[in-house]
Order: sequence, then C-alpha cells, then structure tokens
Amino acid sequence: MKSVGIGMLGAGVVGGSLIRRLVEEHVAIASKTGLDLHLQRVAVRDREKARATAIDPQLITTDAAEVIDDPAVELVVEVMGGLEPAGEMVLRALRAGKPVVTANKALLAERGPELFAAAESAGVPLLFEAAVGGGIPIIRPLSETLAGEQVARVIGIVNGTTNFMLTRMAVDGASYAGALQEAQQLGYAEADPTADVSGADAAAKAAILGSLAFGTWSGLDTVYREGIERLTTADMRWAAELGYTIKLLAIAERRHDGVSVRVYPAMLPVAHPLASIRGATNAIFIEGPSIDELLFAGPGAGGEPTASAVLGDVIDAAREILAGAQVAPRIRLSAGDLVDFDTVATKWCMRLEVDDQAGVLAQVAGAFGKENVSIKSVLQEGRGDDATLIIVTHLAAESQQRAARDAIADLPHVRSVVSVVRVESPDV
Amino acid sequence: MKSVGIGMLGAGVVGGSLIRRLVEEHVAIASKTGLDLHLQRVAVRDREKARATAIDPQLITTDAAEVIDDPAVELVVEVMGGLEPAGEMVLRALRAGKPVVTANKALLAERGPELFAAAESAGVPLLFEAAVGGGIPIIRPLSETLAGEQVARVIGIVNGTTNFMLTRMAVDGASYAGALQEAQQLGYAEADPTADVSGADAAAKAAILGSLAFGTWSGLDTVYREGIERLTTADMRWAAELGYTIKLLAIAERRHDGVSVRVYPAMLPVAHPLASIRGATNAIFIEGPSIDELLFAGPGAGGEPTASAVLGDVIDAAREILAGAQVAPRIRLSAGDLVDFDTVATKWCMRLEVDDQAGVLAQVAGAFGKENVSIKSVLQEGRGDDATLIIVTHLAAESQQRAARDAIADLPHVRSVVSVVRVESPDV
Repeated sequence: MKSVGIGMLGAGVVGGSLIRRLVEEHVAIASKTGLDLHLQRVAVRDREKARATAIDPQLITTDAAEVIDDPAVELVVEVMGGLEPAGEMVLRALRAGKPVVTANKALLAERGPELFAAAESAGVPLLFEAAVGGGIPIIRPLSETLAGEQVARVIGIVNGTTNFMLTRMAVDGASYAGALQEAQQLGYAEADPTADVSGADAAAKAAILGSLAFGTWSGLDTVYREGIERLTTADMRWAAELGYTIKLLAIAERRHDGVSVRVYPAMLPVAHPLASIRGATNAIFIEGPSIDELLFAGPGAGGEPTASAVLGDVIDAAREILAGAQVAPRIRLSAGDLVDFDTVATKWCMRLEVDDQAGVLAQVAGAFGKENVSIKSVLQEGRGDDATLIIVTHLAAESQQRAARDAIADLPHVRSVVSVVRVESPDV
Repeated sequence: MKSVGIGMLGAGVVGGSLIRRLVEEHVAIASKTGLDLHLQRVAVRDREKARATAIDPQLITTDAAEVIDDPAVELVVEVMGGLEPAGEMVLRALRAGKPVVTANKALLAERGPELFAAAESAGVPLLFEAAVGGGIPIIRPLSETLAGEQVARVIGIVNGTTNFMLTRMAVDGASYAGALQEAQQLGYAEADPTADVSGADAAAKAAILGSLAFGTWSGLDTVYREGIERLTTADMRWAAELGYTIKLLAIAERRHDGVSVRVYPAMLPVAHPLASIRGATNAIFIEGPSIDELLFAGPGAGGEPTASAVLGDVIDAAREILAGAQVAPRIRLSAGDLVDFDTVATKWCMRLEVDDQAGVLAQVAGAFGKENVSIKSVLQEGRGDDATLIIVTHLAAESQQRAARDAIADLPHVRSVVSVVRVESPDV
C-alpha cells in the first residue's frame, strides 16, 4: 500500500466531511484506489472547537504554515476559504513543491493566473474540482475532455442558495423575504446572505468557468454581476405567464469580438434544460459546435458532495506524487479580449405601471424605437388607474436597453418601471 | 509551440471528424492548448476510398503497424473499431511506450484488464473518454473525480439508436419496425442493427461503467443482457398508462453481496431524470452517499461529438508526453464479487391475455405467491374474450420472477404472457 501524507488547512463543513471520510472510509478508499491516504496534520482556527470533533488532537495546530512545512505532508488541502491567509498558504505549498487541492473559488477567481503559474513552475498540480458546482464534476470535463472543443457558451445555475429561493418563489409563491428566511433556517444561506443573493459567489464561479471554457482569463473584476435582491413573487408570476422561469445564471459566452462573462437573474423558456433544475441543485449547460449540448447536474453545495470532489482531487494528486512525475499543466490561460458588457446584446423583459390612457403604449414603443430596440411582445393587464405593461424586446445592446429604460421612466404616463429581467432564449 | 506527432488507426466517421478538426482547427487548438498536434500518419482499410477524402495522401498507409512503428508517431489514436487487429495494435503501441487514445468500447469490455496492465507497465496513458457516452465526459468524472466515492449505482441510457427508436415508439406511437427503419434512414442505425437493438453495444459500455464505478472488473461476459427487439407500441402505451416510460438501461449496482451489471429495457417513472431523455441523446445518472445524484447528458454518438471526446484525450496525452512524465495509472481494477443475475431482486411488469373468467386473477396471484413474489398493482382491461391483465410486482429475485412467469404461462385460463418488462423505481 502506497502512503501519502495529507495536510489540511481548515476543518469547517467541507474539511470536516473530508476528515471524516479519510478516517471512516480509509479501507474502502484504499481498496478502490490502492492509496493509503494518511491524515498528517490539520490547521484549524479554534483549537478548542476542533477538540470537540473526531479529529485526533495530536494532529491539530492553529498554524497553517506548520502544516505546509511538515516534511511528512506531501499534499495540501486548502478548505479554509477566504482570500488571506489562504492565498499566501497555497503559494507557500506550491513553492515547496507540494500539490494543492482547493475548493476556494474566491481565491481562484481573484488570483488564478498567479496560482496556476506557481503550480506550473513548481511542476505540481493545483486542483480545484470542488470550486464550482460542489459535487458535480465540471472542472475536469471542461479543462480536459473539452480542451479541444471551441466552446460557444457555458450557462450555469451555480449557486444553490439562490436557486432554492427562486424555486420557492416560483413554485410555491413564497416572498423573497420568506424564501430567504427558509433558506437560512435550512442552512442553505448564511446569516449574512450577501455573497449568495448579490451574485458574488456565482460571479467567482462564472469567472472560473469562463476562463476554463475559453482559455482566456476572465477575472472576477471583469464579470458583470446583478443579484436576485430585487426580484419579487410578481416577477416570477409574470415570467410563468409568458412561459418562462427566472433563474440566477452564470453565463460565459464566446462572441465574435471576445469573451463575455456575466451573472444575472434571467428568464429561461420553461422547456430549457436548466429551467427544471429545482431547489439547491446546480447544473451547468455547455454548448459547442461538436458536442452540441451537454448538461451536468447534481448537488452544488454542502459538505458531503463538496468533500467528494475534494477527495477525487486528493486521489488524483496522490497518484501523481507516487508516479514521481513532473506534472503536465492542465490549465492554460492567455490574456484575451473581454467584451464590455455595455456592448453585449441582451433581451429585456420590462414591467411598467402606467396610466391606462390611449397613447401610452405608443410613447413607450417610441422610446424603444428611438434606441433601436425592437419589441417582441407586449402584454397589457388591468384597466383604469392600475394598468401594467409587460414588454419583451428583441436583442439589443445593453447600453441601448438602458437608454430606452431611462427614457421610458421619464415618460409622463409611465408611473414606474417596476422591474427589468433579462431573457435568455435561443430565438432572436 | 510544442509539437506532438499523432498516428491514427482508422479514418471512418469518428476518425474522419478528428482528422478534419486536427487540420481545420489546428490554429485554434494550438492557441487554446499550446500544443501543435501534428497528424503524422493514418492507417486506412481502403487506400482508394481515403484518397477521396481531405487526408494528405502522403500520410496514408494500409498497414497499421507502420503507423505505430513510425518514430515520429508519439501518440496513437485507435478508431478502427472491432476486436482485431485493433487489440493487437493497441498492445503494440503501449509496449512501444506510446500513449493510446481509443474509442473502442468492445475491445475495452473484452480485454480491459490486459490493456490497462500493459499501459501501466509501460507507464503511458490509455485513454478512452469516447468509449462511453460519445461526447459526454463520463469516464474522467467516474474514474477521477469520483475515485473516492462509494458509488451505489450507475444507470445510463448509453445507446442513442435504441433511445431514438423507443422515443419514436413512446411519443409518436411508431411501430418497432417503423422506428428501426427511420433510425436506419437517419443514419442512427446500421443496416444490421443487431449490436444496438440486442443491447450488445450498451452491455460493453455497462461493463466499462461498472468497472470504473466500483473498481471491480466486470467483463462483457458477466453482464446480463436483453435487447429491445420484443418491445411493442402496446408495451409503451401500457407503460405510459401506469406512469412509466420504457428505456434501454445500462445498470451497474453495488449490492451487499457484490456488483451487478446488466442491460435491459425497463420502465422508469416519468419523473425520473432519465425518463425525459429523448431521441439519440445519452445520459448517465450516478448515485452515491456523498454526491447524492449526478446527471450527465449529451450527444451519445455521432462523428463530431465522439471526435470531440477523442480530441480531449489526445490533448491530455500530449500534455503528459511533453511533461516527460511516468504517468500515474488512473484506472485500478481488482477482481471482485459479481452477483449472479438470478439472485438480483427486480420488479416485473407482466402483461397477460386471459379468459375473462372469475378466478383467473386468483390463479395468477396464487402462482406469484407460491414463488414469494408479491404483487404491487393489477390493472384489468377488456371484457369477454379479450381481457388483459397488467401486473406489477414488488422486488423479488429474478429466478423467482421467472418461475412465477413459467407457472402463470401454464395456467388454463391464461392464453399468453404477452410481455415482461422490468421496472426500475426507487419504491419497494
């Protein structure tokens, strides 16, 4: 049996699951892989809290550097999260020639090129299957199996918390506040849910997916992002009326003038494979000329599924260590053109409250027309004081859509632009 | 730019697509991967036919060994298919220390352990992402990402031809013969469709999936197999009536007493994720304690998608070559317990034509009872001479189900056992 010493940074939800599996499933893993994965050292934030867990107290330290520098640690698992000291520690491990497995999407989205370069120059793997899609294998398929594919587009539901909330709002008519509260009670959402509902978590994953799909580095700062905070049950109801479902989408798209990576809630036709992804499930949909359409779906978060992806990476890295190989770099990123979101053509669904007067639709249509935004459909509801107009446009540049919206908001008989949700659908 | 010389065995549908991409997308692949994939030599069956293609005539030979032995060939792609000479050639390449990429599921299912051993002792990769699921990345996720997962079950729709036919029969009411003819006209089915409709193709893929999922070698000869040849439009209609869809399933399952790998048409509840997979699309559903449920779906066959998977493997192997690495073996198989299909508990849906006489149901129920098969539901249709009984059982061992069927077929008022379709559903 070949033994590999593992050092862990962090023993939270994912780390705890991984430690439990390394201990409880030691024999099963050994029999399936031929590897004796040996937990050598664990860095924790709070020694007292860690004492209450199943971790052998002798393995525990509060000094992450001590884990990395332990000569018996051959492989470092970073599941502490956050930018620092995680970033410093990952670099320290790579520079010491130790493979690193991480689930830290924020760190990768922020400092990917620097970390990949450090791994390449050290000739060791930096693996991060768990960083996107939790337990869904997506990093390896995208960066290896599809390495030769000229991927056209990746669309993903990559945040389980918000998908849970949107499902509750769409299917059960829950309010935003009610859905959020329920997500918090179930442990899907943090006490401070900002990272999820603002789209920040999805944006970090979109940056990683886009970078791998196109080989063009799209850092977090280049990702356009809107969250779900402004969505209401009424938006869900109107979307359903029109044959759509609203999902928070991470989109990475190859366009003629470069790559566009963006995150926003959007209306998907109910027949789209992603429209039926419910609850905390994640799914990633990849389009390309040869593969046509691929769908990956599964548990996008949670300690157990994420630990499963981390464990797969640990086994992969352990095999490389034992082969004594100078590892071939699997990720190649070049600087490429990133498209300014203002120029990206999108379709909008705009909901207006208007005075029910003859001529208001003509005014609204005129405002769209002035910005060269053409209208696909109009739905008018209500009579008297309280009329609602739902307008779906054809594709037009974001800057034009916004200019039209601003002009419409200023029209005399338009009381308010109640909501704007983009539409992602194959039709023009 | 790092150059890698590629030798190809076969230039049929998949090989032709791959050659086209290596030529037409040479620059795009180089810019995405940093690799100059250089087509060095191509073995074809028919030199004259190959002359009619876009392949540079100077690269063509009819001698596969010549391709392998060419010192400038650093990597061999086997897309000739069949057991021989493909098997001999793959071994020759591996023994010469050249990585092999193959899409040959039949060869792998027949001689997997021997080929993996040859690759391991030569320290070179033997990659076969395209052997199962065409363009769907499944081999790498299963053997790498899920290497540490105690997979419970893999269920796949892994044959596009039969899924196309079953979809036509179920959705459009086509007859078996009509659906087959249409599949042939569209190029989904061969003139001799035996390999598809008999389940042989699916069985080879099931053997591979089962072996990778459980690390236990399940050769083709251990896979229980039934095809779709006996299914009728009436079976599809009755299944729909009961809330099911019939799919040809490849199932690999871990049981308390070992691993069971089998292929047969089965009724799936319409809400099952695989039930909505239509046409030539393939999908693989994986269940495990940590990952819960994963779904992979995409184009399961066809030159372009399959070539995409082959190309991913070629890029992977080329990276390994350039890293100059002794390659870590990714596949580990041990001899494990395989369960005799007779002992596997299955649920049956049996359709009988009976005389509509008082007491016939009691006789049938008695025959099931005698074999300890308990009945879940009974549906009786028709009156007078032409009554039909549809019986769905609970789980019971195959041997008991068969004994019950044989006894029922002999009952005086049972005219015939018209059909038997197994039921795969989570309920007991």
